[in-house]
Amino acid sequence: MPVLVMKFGGTSVATPDRIRRAAKRVGVEVAKGYDVIVIVSAMAGETNKLVGYVDEISPLFDAREYDAVVSSGENVTAGLMALTLQEMDVPARSWQGWQVPVQTTDAHANARIEAIPSDNISRKFAEGMKVAVVAGFQGISPEGRITTLGRGGSDTTAVAFAAAFDAERCDIYTDVDGVYTTDPRICEKARKLDRIAFEEMLELASLGAKVLQTRSVELAMRYKVKLRVLSSFEEMDDAAGTLVCDEEDIMENKVVAGVAYSRDEAKMTLVSVADRPGIAAAIFGPLAEAGVNVDMIVQNIAEEGRTDMTFSCPTNQVARAEKAMNDAKASGAINFNELVADTGVAKVSVVGIGMRSHAGVAAKMFKVLAGEGINIKVITTSEIKISVLIDRKYMELAVQALHDAFELEKAG
Amino acid sequence: MPVLVMKFGGTSVATPDRIRRAAKRVGVEVAKGYDVIVIVSAMAGETNKLVGYVDEISPLFDAREYDAVVSSGENVTAGLMALTLQEMDVPARSWQGWQVPVQTTDAHANARIEAIPSDNISRKFAEGMKVAVVAGFQGISPEGRITTLGRGGSDTTAVAFAAAFDAERCDIYTDVDGVYTTDPRICEKARKLDRIAFEEMLELASLGAKVLQTRSVELAMRYKVKLRVLSSFEEMDDAAGTLVCDEEDIMENKVVAGVAYSRDEAKMTLVSVADRPGIAAAIFGPLAEAGVNVDMIVQNIAEEGRTDMTFSCPTNQVARAEKAMNDAKASGAINFNELVADTGVAKVSVVGIGMRSHAGVAAKMFKVLAGEGINIKVITTSEIKISVLIDRKYMELAVQALHDAFELEKAG
Repeated sequence: MPVLVMKFGGTSVATPDRIRRAAKRVGVEVAKGYDVIVIVSAMAGETNKLVGYVDEISPLFDAREYDAVVSSGENVTAGLMALTLQEMDVPARSWQGWQVPVQTTDAHANARIEAIPSDNISRKFAEGMKVAVVAGFQGISPEGRITTLGRGGSDTTAVAFAAAFDAERCDIYTDVDGVYTTDPRICEKARKLDRIAFEEMLELASLGAKVLQTRSVELAMRYKVKLRVLSSFEEMDDAAGTLVCDEEDIMENKVVAGVAYSRDEAKMTLVSVADRPGIAAAIFGPLAEAGVNVDMIVQNIAEEGRTDMTFSCPTNQVARAEKAMNDAKASGAINFNELVADTGVAKVSVVGIGMRSHAGVAAKMFKVLAGEGINIKVITTSEIKISVLIDRKYMELAVQALHDAFELEKAG
Repeated sequence: MPVLVMKFGGTSVATPDRIRRAAKRVGVEVAKGYDVIVIVSAMAGETNKLVGYVDEISPLFDAREYDAVVSSGENVTAGLMALTLQEMDVPARSWQGWQVPVQTTDAHANARIEAIPSDNISRKFAEGMKVAVVAGFQGISPEGRITTLGRGGSDTTAVAFAAAFDAERCDIYTDVDGVYTTDPRICEKARKLDRIAFEEMLELASLGAKVLQTRSVELAMRYKVKLRVLSSFEEMDDAAGTLVCDEEDIMENKVVAGVAYSRDEAKMTLVSVADRPGIAAAIFGPLAEAGVNVDMIVQNIAEEGRTDMTFSCPTNQVARAEKAMNDAKASGAINFNELVADTGVAKVSVVGIGMRSHAGVAAKMFKVLAGEGINIKVITTSEIKISVLIDRKYMELAVQALHDAFELEKAG
C-alpha cells in the first residue's frame, strides 16, 4: 500500500470536535487505499501551559526534565486521535516517540532526528492496521530519555516519517490554506501559490512566513519529500493547498515567487570602530555567545582605520546586544565611538528561484521603493533573495508596491 | 543509604506552589540521609479532564489508548517535581513508568504490577542522585504499551517501589492527616490513630474510608512495607500521621479500631425464590456478569421449597441488578415472586483485629443499636468485622453511638 503522512497542528486538534473533523480527512485518504501515518501536535494551548509551569518552577531548567514535561501534550492527542478513528471503524493505534522509536540526538529541547526504524509500524500495517497515529515533536535520546525537537517540531517529525516510509506525500494541515505570494492581511491582492520550490519556501520560512518550520523544509528538500500545506478548516480536494516541491516540478515560471516581511527587526550600528584584521570576529563572537541572532551584516569604511559596522537582530535582543558590545568595549576587545540602535525598522524581501537566471530584479526592487519615496537603510542579497531594511512605517506600502510591480497577483 | 518512598497525591501537587511545598518535605528526608523515591500523581483535576476527553470521543474506548492518554498527567508532575528539587539543589531526575520499567500485566486500565527492576534507579543513587521522581499509576505491558493501574493506582505504585527497594518506610502524603477511628465529619469525637494493622486498614479501605487504595494495602501487607499516611498540608514531624503496620507492631490494644460506614448501599430482596441446589449460582452469576458488585448476602428460608434472597450493592447499580434478575426470570433460569429494592439504607461496620480473641463484640453492637431504637436489616460478619444494614437516616446516630460505646475517643 502507498503510504501518506498527514500532520495536524495544534489548532486542528484543539478540541474533541476538531479531532473528529481531522479524523474524517484521514478516513477519506484511507478510503483511497493509503496506509496513513498521522502526526499530531498538542491541543492548542497545552504546550504553552506546560512551558509556563516549567518557567514558573525553574527559569534555568534542566532541559531533560523540560522535555519530559512538555512532550506530554502530544501523547494525549495521539491517543485521542486513535480512539476517534476507531470510533469511525478505521483500524488505528497510537505511538509515542519512544515506542517507534524516533531516535534523536541528546540535544534536549532542540534535538535532531537521527533515525526512524520503520519495522514496528510497517508490521502493524501488514497486519491490517490502516492508521498509525504518532505523537509529534518528540523522540528518545541514546540514553533513553525523552527529547523534543524545538518549537514547530511536529512538522519535522512529519517530514522525517515521510522520508523513512517513502511516503507518496506529506500533508501538513494547518490554519491557513497554503503558502501565499505575501501576507494576505497586509496585501489584499496576495494569491495562494499552487506550488513553490523548496529553496523558496526555505527563504520564506526563515523570513517570517511561519507556515512551516524551517528544518522540516530542509529535511523535505534533502529527501525529496513532496510537502503539501493545506487548511484543516476548509473543504478538501486534491488540488487544495500549496505543494512544496523540487523546482523542476513547478510549471509556473515567475522570477519572483513572493514578498516576505519581518516587523520584528532592529538595526544596530557600531559607529567608528577601530578597524583591524579580525575585528568582525571580535564583534560577532560576543554577540553569538550572548545568544543574539544576527541577521544582516553591512560594513562601511568611514575613514582610514575606522569603519562603521551595522547589523540587524530581533527587537527583543537589542538590550542583550548592547550589553555584549559594551562589555567587549570595556574589556578592550573592540573599540567604537557610539552604538546606535534603531528599533523602528522592518525587513522586506523578494524571493524567487527565477532570480538565478534573471538579472535586474534588484534594480527593479530599488526603483519601486524609490518611486514610493522609501529610503533603504541596509541591503543584503542571496542567490534567490533580496532583502532591505526600511523604516517600519513604510513596510505595508513596500510590500504592496513590490507585489504589484512583480505582478504576483497573476498566476503562471 | 536507606531508601524512603514518599507518595504525593493530586491535591498535594495541584499547583507549582504545592509541588514546591512537597519538594521541601522531600528535602528534609534527603537531609536525614535517605535516598528518596518520590511517587507523584497527576495535578488535581488533570486525570478527570483526560478521562472526560476519552469519554466524549469514545464511550466504549480501547483501553490501550485510554491508558496512553490518561497516564500523561503523572508524567507532567514527575518532570515538574524533579525540576523543583533541582532548583533546591537536590540532585533529582524523573522516570516515566516505561523508563524504570514498571512491568505490568496487559490488563489495560486496571493492570497489576509484576516486577520493578531496581538497577536503573539504584545506579543513579550510586552516582550521587538523591531523589528519583517516578510517575505513579502507570507501567508498561509485555507488548511495550503503556498501562495504568486503575484509580488510586499511585498508592500501589508507591508500595510496590517500597517493596522493590526494600524501603525503610512508604509515606503516603494526602489531604487528610491520618486514619481516624471514624469519619470526623459525622462524629466529632473521632480520634486519629497512631497505628493501625494492615488487616484493619484493608477492611476500612474497602468499607469506604478512602484514605488508601485497597490494593496498595494488600501489597504492603504481603511485603511487610511500613506504610504511613500523613497530610502534606500540616507541619511534619516523625510521629505525624498513621502508621499502617503488622499487628505485632501495635502497642495499643483495643478490641475495636474503628467504625466505618457507607452511605451508598441498596438492599435488594428476591421474594419467594423457588429454591433448589445451585440457585445461588443462578442468581449471582448473572449479577456478576452484569457488573454488579454484590457485597452482603443473606438467605432466609421462608417456607418449604421457597426462600427469600437478600443482597446489597451500590445504589447506582440497582437498575443493572434489576435488569439482570428480570432477564434471568424471563429466561427461566430463576423464579421469584417479587424483587424489592430498598435504596434508603446504609452500612455501618465495626472493625478490629481484637475481635478475633474477644467474644461479645457483636452482642454489644446489636445492644447499642437497639438502645437507640435502630432496626437492623441485614447482618454479616467476618473475623475482624461486623457490618449491619440500617435505615440511612440512622446512620450518623449509629456511628456516634458505637464510637461512644467502644470508647474509641480514648487512646490505647
